[in-house]
Amino acid sequence: MKKEILLVALGGNALIRKGQIGTVEEQFANLRTPIGQIAKLSRDYRVIITHGNGPQVGNLLLQQECCDAVPSLPLEILVAQTQGQIGYMIESTLDAALMGLGIHTEQPLVSLMSYVVVAEKDPAFLAPSKPIGPVFSEEKAATLPYPTRKTGEGYRRVVASPKPVTIVEKREIRNLIDMGFIVICCGGGGIPVIREGRAFSGVDAVIDKDLASAKLAEEVGVDIFLIATDVKGVALHYGRPEEAFLRKVSLDQAARYLKEGLFPAGSMGPKVEAAMQFMKRGGKRAIITSIDAIEEAVSGSAGTEVIR
Amino acid sequence: MKKEILLVALGGNALIRKGQIGTVEEQFANLRTPIGQIAKLSRDYRVIITHGNGPQVGNLLLQQECCDAVPSLPLEILVAQTQGQIGYMIESTLDAALMGLGIHTEQPLVSLMSYVVVAEKDPAFLAPSKPIGPVFSEEKAATLPYPTRKTGEGYRRVVASPKPVTIVEKREIRNLIDMGFIVICCGGGGIPVIREGRAFSGVDAVIDKDLASAKLAEEVGVDIFLIATDVKGVALHYGRPEEAFLRKVSLDQAARYLKEGLFPAGSMGPKVEAAMQFMKRGGKRAIITSIDAIEEAVSGSAGTEVIR
Repeated sequence: MKKEILLVALGGNALIRKGQIGTVEEQFANLRTPIGQIAKLSRDYRVIITHGNGPQVGNLLLQQECCDAVPSLPLEILVAQTQGQIGYMIESTLDAALMGLGIHTEQPLVSLMSYVVVAEKDPAFLAPSKPIGPVFSEEKAATLPYPTRKTGEGYRRVVASPKPVTIVEKREIRNLIDMGFIVICCGGGGIPVIREGRAFSGVDAVIDKDLASAKLAEEVGVDIFLIATDVKGVALHYGRPEEAFLRKVSLDQAARYLKEGLFPAGSMGPKVEAAMQFMKRGGKRAIITSIDAIEEAVSGSAGTEVIR
Repeated sequence: MKKEILLVALGGNALIRKGQIGTVEEQFANLRTPIGQIAKLSRDYRVIITHGNGPQVGNLLLQQECCDAVPSLPLEILVAQTQGQIGYMIESTLDAALMGLGIHTEQPLVSLMSYVVVAEKDPAFLAPSKPIGPVFSEEKAATLPYPTRKTGEGYRRVVASPKPVTIVEKREIRNLIDMGFIVICCGGGGIPVIREGRAFSGVDAVIDKDLASAKLAEEVGVDIFLIATDVKGVALHYGRPEEAFLRKVSLDQAARYLKEGLFPAGSMGPKVEAAMQFMKRGGKRAIITSIDAIEEAVSGSAGTEVIR
């Protein structure tokens, strides 16, 4: 019998933890926690790994702002650069973990560039709302050639965050998984492109990596969809005295809680939505858990599971 | 019968031509020339595409120099970023070209991260000689934490250029080619790593992309190895009145010309060496040609062929 397919979507804290500036040494060291667990799980599951790229793309944007001597690159290209960077870091960390377990010869792995189609008419393009990159003063913000918004720290560039329509490389990823490859893909939610006749062109946007991962999971036929983040799972009234951790939550309950605004919009909200979407479209198990408890969560003893 | 395997190693001018500053628009437009030809060739050959990254990695190095607010990344990570960037640009251009020919549904394609093992004891590490990145004044160069060298334009950082020992992803690439995938890989000569016990670690070095491509060609069992560059092929006394273009050159002749210093060391020399190495290790055809004449060269009517 073929092994089940497990997709692990790694949050930003898999690479950079709170309070760190994000040196390469820190990022490699942090990666060992989730990747060591994933290496072990690869004995029992066919594995896909996706990942975020917020701080890394932020750094590239900041560098562009500093440096007039180099032609500025559009956001799609910076996302591609972070897919290269993080894909290599995950792949080489995983390679070492598989060698440590003595199973690297059975486990071919690839890290591949992924682009994701979004709809040109997605309403998100009418009201860019996702803050990215460095913080500017109000004076500087007024001179920038793109929309900005006031956030807690100051003014930041905002871009559209459209819904993923389809992963361009879904067929390739499905073939690779069938052949037993571990596949690292859809970094940063994928490079956003729109279809223009017989070609794709990149757009200035950012796709939520959990929603892109859910779309990939659906298109590839993943069995278990696991979102690894910086908290142990889903809680109601997170961070308040009445906080209540949920071990299981049904689709109906989750929809009600979302509507009542019980999950923070920028963080847990999209994760719960992504898990719900996966379960609605026929997935077997959707789990939200912490980066330290990936193995336990797969075995059923940690995290929050969204059930039918 | 299985189609022959063709590896095309694209030079830097596939993306940025002489006199251009290298905007994204320029790079995408330039790519259409070689990629359109490769798309057509993919009907008759299984295809691997490799590429250089000199100007792109130079721009990332320059940005790092400008910007103190972001932690500097080591060269291996910058190479990974350029693999992401250029891999995406080649893949999406090829996707469009295949759609234009109406053959994209038969031609799955992937662009993957590649790292290449070099020997820790490679003599190149004792005498770093490959100039990379921006030009500095003599005063500035004296303050930099890495070796620099005086070049025509000023002082530049120099790194080692060790020989490629093996492509880590060779098995994966062979599988993908067997399945009919077009594979884009080994960007910038690959991310250089050394083996340390049961892991690889990245090193500050740059691998010649033609030598890395020749190594990949040998390890994957490529039939035709084509190096696409900015001149129509190999000439003796290049750029001088007695310049003599070579349509064919035998291994023996090529070795003699190399020894006599008839090919420029930084440019045509390594290409001829790479082509020779491929032919010595059992390759069928090795061709050096211009970016505009890839199809003609494969059909035998352009470029310089290194023969046994």
